[in-house]
Amino acid sequence: MSETTTPQIGIIMGSKSDLPVMQDAADILKELGVAYEITIVSAHRTPHRMVNYAESAQKRGLKAIIAGAGGAAHLPGMVASMTTLPVIGVPVKSSNSIDGWDSILSILQMPNGVPVATVALNAAKNAGILAAQMVGAFDLNVQVNLQNYKISLANKVKKDALELGGKDEF
Amino acid sequence: MSETTTPQIGIIMGSKSDLPVMQDAADILKELGVAYEITIVSAHRTPHRMVNYAESAQKRGLKAIIAGAGGAAHLPGMVASMTTLPVIGVPVKSSNSIDGWDSILSILQMPNGVPVATVALNAAKNAGILAAQMVGAFDLNVQVNLQNYKISLANKVKKDALELGGKDEF
Amino acid sequence: MSETTTPQIGIIMGSKSDLPVMQDAADILKELGVAYEITIVSAHRTPHRMVNYAESAQKRGLKAIIAGAGGAAHLPGMVASMTTLPVIGVPVKSSNSIDGWDSILSILQMPNGVPVATVALNAAKNAGILAAQMVGAFDLNVQVNLQNYKISLANKVKKDALELGGKDEF
Amino acid sequence: MSETTTPQIGIIMGSKSDLPVMQDAADILKELGVAYEITIVSAHRTPHRMVNYAESAQKRGLKAIIAGAGGAAHLPGMVASMTTLPVIGVPVKSSNSIDGWDSILSILQMPNGVPVATVALNAAKNAGILAAQMVGAFDLNVQVNLQNYKISLANKVKKDALELGGKDEF
Amino acid sequence: MSETTTPQIGIIMGSKSDLPVMQDAADILKELGVAYEITIVSAHRTPHRMVNYAESAQKRGLKAIIAGAGGAAHLPGMVASMTTLPVIGVPVKSSNSIDGWDSILSILQMPNGVPVATVALNAAKNAGILAAQMVGAFDLNVQVNLQNYKISLANKVKKDALELGGKDEF
Amino acid sequence: MSETTTPQIGIIMGSKSDLPVMQDAADILKELGVAYEITIVSAHRTPHRMVNYAESAQKRGLKAIIAGAGGAAHLPGMVASMTTLPVIGVPVKSSNSIDGWDSILSILQMPNGVPVATVALNAAKNAGILAAQMVGAFDLNVQVNLQNYKISLANKVKKDALELGGKDEF
Amino acid sequence: MSETTTPQIGIIMGSKSDLPVMQDAADILKELGVAYEITIVSAHRTPHRMVNYAESAQKRGLKAIIAGAGGAAHLPGMVASMTTLPVIGVPVKSSNSIDGWDSILSILQMPNGVPVATVALNAAKNAGILAAQMVGAFDLNVQVNLQNYKISLANKVKKDALELGGKDEF
Amino acid sequence: MSETTTPQIGIIMGSKSDLPVMQDAADILKELGVAYEITIVSAHRTPHRMVNYAESAQKRGLKAIIAGAGGAAHLPGMVASMTTLPVIGVPVKSSNSIDGWDSILSILQMPNGVPVATVALNAAKNAGILAAQMVGAFDLNVQVNLQNYKISLANKVKKDALELGGKDEF
Repeated sequence: MSETTTPQIGIIMGSKSDLPVMQDAADILKELGVAYEITIVSAHRTPHRMVNYAESAQKRGLKAIIAGAGGAAHLPGMVASMTTLPVIGVPVKSSNSIDGWDSILSILQMPNGVPVATVALNAAKNAGILAAQMVGAFDLNVQVNLQNYKISLANKVKKDALELGGKDEF
Repeated sequence: MSETTTPQIGIIMGSKSDLPVMQDAADILKELGVAYEITIVSAHRTPHRMVNYAESAQKRGLKAIIAGAGGAAHLPGMVASMTTLPVIGVPVKSSNSIDGWDSILSILQMPNGVPVATVALNAAKNAGILAAQMVGAFDLNVQVNLQNYKISLANKVKKDALELGGKDEF
Repeated sequence: MSETTTPQIGIIMGSKSDLPVMQDAADILKELGVAYEITIVSAHRTPHRMVNYAESAQKRGLKAIIAGAGGAAHLPGMVASMTTLPVIGVPVKSSNSIDGWDSILSILQMPNGVPVATVALNAAKNAGILAAQMVGAFDLNVQVNLQNYKISLANKVKKDALELGGKDEF
Repeated sequence: MSETTTPQIGIIMGSKSDLPVMQDAADILKELGVAYEITIVSAHRTPHRMVNYAESAQKRGLKAIIAGAGGAAHLPGMVASMTTLPVIGVPVKSSNSIDGWDSILSILQMPNGVPVATVALNAAKNAGILAAQMVGAFDLNVQVNLQNYKISLANKVKKDALELGGKDEF
Repeated sequence: MSETTTPQIGIIMGSKSDLPVMQDAADILKELGVAYEITIVSAHRTPHRMVNYAESAQKRGLKAIIAGAGGAAHLPGMVASMTTLPVIGVPVKSSNSIDGWDSILSILQMPNGVPVATVALNAAKNAGILAAQMVGAFDLNVQVNLQNYKISLANKVKKDALELGGKDEF
Repeated sequence: MSETTTPQIGIIMGSKSDLPVMQDAADILKELGVAYEITIVSAHRTPHRMVNYAESAQKRGLKAIIAGAGGAAHLPGMVASMTTLPVIGVPVKSSNSIDGWDSILSILQMPNGVPVATVALNAAKNAGILAAQMVGAFDLNVQVNLQNYKISLANKVKKDALELGGKDEF
Repeated sequence: MSETTTPQIGIIMGSKSDLPVMQDAADILKELGVAYEITIVSAHRTPHRMVNYAESAQKRGLKAIIAGAGGAAHLPGMVASMTTLPVIGVPVKSSNSIDGWDSILSILQMPNGVPVATVALNAAKNAGILAAQMVGAFDLNVQVNLQNYKISLANKVKKDALELGGKDEF
Repeated sequence: MSETTTPQIGIIMGSKSDLPVMQDAADILKELGVAYEITIVSAHRTPHRMVNYAESAQKRGLKAIIAGAGGAAHLPGMVASMTTLPVIGVPVKSSNSIDGWDSILSILQMPNGVPVATVALNAAKNAGILAAQMVGAFDLNVQVNLQNYKISLANKVKKDALELGGKDEF
């Protein structure tokens, strides 16, 4: 865990039903030592809660926001319209989504002026890593954790290769 | 023009660049005798203006709102989240849109609880007709205008058929 | 329930197999106090029944029609061609549909002159809410019901947020 | 030209703007010696004209109907719902079509019980050939014309191959 | 059954695994009184068998060929290249198909000169009806069977409507 | 310009032909006072140059990398595989791209462990803003620049609205 | 088995989870008598292992490389960037893939200069056959094995046709 | 040019209109020193010419075949069904193609047993390089030419980078 206990990353999602996907963001942030907060904020059902969340985010100490939503997913883009923090969007393949295309396009295709950093469909884990990378660019402890994580990914592949009977190195 | 001069329909669009498309909604409403107002409201660049527009709409006498936007088009859905008036969404094939798919899906695929009445890509004229139909269901003058409009559509087809050398009736 | 018991909204679907989806429209209309009728009308198997339904709709007192169909879904558009009432189309992801794309496009992409108010795939609940909004724009009782419904949506989110350990307000 | 001068094939289209595409069907039918009639019938703007056209088609001596339309193209399927003649659908990439996908899917994806013989996007020429093939299966003169047409297609390829410097035969 | 027992319709498919889909074509042809033959012909695994099948089809008395295949489905188009009989293509959503898009596009999008009458994904039943319609345009018995079939479709809808509590007529 | 003149953001692209799109990233970074470097690095034509660029990026002081590419766009993802800095991917609609879908999917759909922060098609300007936001979360000067930029976006909308004859505020 | 026991074909995959798909390539190569090696090489998790694999491939005697990956599948294209051997790409419909479209497009749409021979989604068996065909063009033993394999495919179809009651020959 | 003047690669295309795309394959093969032949063979208009071409290919000394076609592109797959040589398919975005999707899917999605090595849309140049790579795996002269070509690609990038003001190396 990095020194501070004030959350640096805010994780929000449009519905409780997105939690099984979005929990991955929280888990990897914990593993990488970055403090976070997590809650539910619906763009369409609680627009004022969303406004308040977005506008208070920086003052509350957040360095980035991870927002996940499905279908016509407006949460990431609308939050981005009301903060200058980087917003990471997670397209969720929810039950009302058409194979995820609606979630992806309504998060990714933001107009010039208001970017959302979009990750792959359901890739909340990658959203967490990306948030940690943003912090890690300015925080040596997190940086080291990220480098160790990268090494662990490579070691896993080499272990799998050996089990398959392949070579360790080429 | 129906008796009242208070606008019954609000037409909004996310950017001045949407005006060439959205003007069609205004023109057909005028033709069908329904008073309207028209302005620019950007979900992503003026979120507070959007909140104020949506929340004051009913008090100002509007009966429906037509909202057009392109790309990750959040304007129709976000306005719908803050009013109980019917909101008609016009997906605009703007310069930053991927063949219109992003505009369509981010307007159409609203979650349960917050509908947007979506029309075809760039179909601002149909948005205007649809708005007039909503008024016409409760206003005899507008109803008659709509019926005459429908007759004019049929007459145009029959005239074209005759010019092509086909029969008038079967 | 609004004062009148004459149905204000007609709900039709192309096949009995669409009922599990379309029942949601009836249920929410009942909850919002708007009288409705519901039946099966197939564009392709009972074209004359469809003509009669569409042409008698206004005389029978309907204010809007909700039409659901799957695949090459012609019912909403064809009904719209024969009435000046607003028609709400529900694309149904039926067994013969290609992930819903055919249903969506054949309902949404109506030519200028004949709009269909399209809602999300399988979103019969939203079709019901949209119909109620059309009535509510002219009927105070329904308007109040819609506002209460909107509040209930927000309360549900806040309750879920508290259960997740997040804050109530920001 | 086959012996009869009563039209055997009816060519209809939803709008005069479809004529540049649909004329190809007429031209190839003339070349293959099959009598035809051609006119404009709009499903959405002239639904009664469409009903009358479809229901009188067989009595008037037609053996097949070619119907072209764009966007939410309901004409081929609706005509098919009111006749037992084979209906050939031509998806037209009209100005309001999304790259032709809407036209294709709303013609192709007909429910069981009511087929439409769909050809490629804008392929009115192929619709004409297909109609001639249906007649030719029962009419020797047309059959011979079709065989000669097939030979001319092959000869054109061989001529092009020789011009490119390739061999005539392998 | 029509008077003749010589098959009028040939049903072929690219693989035994297509049989559960393609059997529907055979069943409806039997119901509509049109004699058929059915077998397996693979474009890619038995190209010479395909050539022989296509080139002998007319001599053997066939009036139309129904060809079903999945994935890169070349069977309908290749058979059409070698006969002047109408060829009906059934795109099969086989295990190696990407949601059916490959099957549809490789059957539908034939170049000018060589049409395939394409029906909906997996719609072998409609292929059978379409083949019967081609025969029925020249055969009164089949014509009457088709008309009775159409009536039975309508009666089924009205029966379902009554069960749902809707009206019989409008 | 922020105090440092060491580049904080690296902008790379797969081909010189991507420069007209990618220049927007440089321009907005300059406007927002964030130092950058810009060059060409091709994943497929100069893989070793790419390895060296990615592995030296952090040591050279970069805080984030913006990588643009078209078609099968591997540059952003491969750079991300060799650095723990955040990588922002710009899908470029290059001449060999299928409407941009290939560029988007090959940048967005990274496997878990190696995120790329994807922005909209051709949205190099948004990539620049996003990079500035990452810096701004830790740098007050850049933060202020971003807030002023946001205000300028809103003012532009209000100015456009007034010109259209709409209201300034609601 | 061809004379040599030095592997002629290298089979690699991005993740152990791709093995159930990729094993098909190994199995058919064994059946066709072509020696192979198989291992795991991840573009994103083990970029250096990938560089080493690709650059040593020709020296180690390989004649072609089969690379399978899912999602943003960069392995085939990146290996192709570092060898002049033909690289065959297998798009894998992995758990993080959007119906396989991302895998297909990020393998297929390589820029000019660096081709990847792409086979169908999950078609590792075809990748193996294609690799054997490349060897077989220069190796008579493998050529004969391929011809026998082709005959066995045809015999299987004819056997299935007989079981269905169809004819053996036409 | 490699020693032999017997063509090692056959280039065929479905129509003369494909020549502007397919010429790239010939040009790069010439540059890489691999002898080729080029002609027009249409699957749909000259099926027997196609059979003869495919079945004589190996006897005539070809080592691989490059086949380009658009729309429902059956040429590559059908040729592959009648030879054991590797067949490289070039999806051509012809005038009758839907953005190239039909060409791609009808070439790529071949069933197990009959692979086609598919390259990117219109990527005839890459088809030529791929064919040269197949030859180069067994022919040192061609191998060297390919390595030099790869070096020229890298040098071009570095030259462009220097012109843009970027570094030569990292």
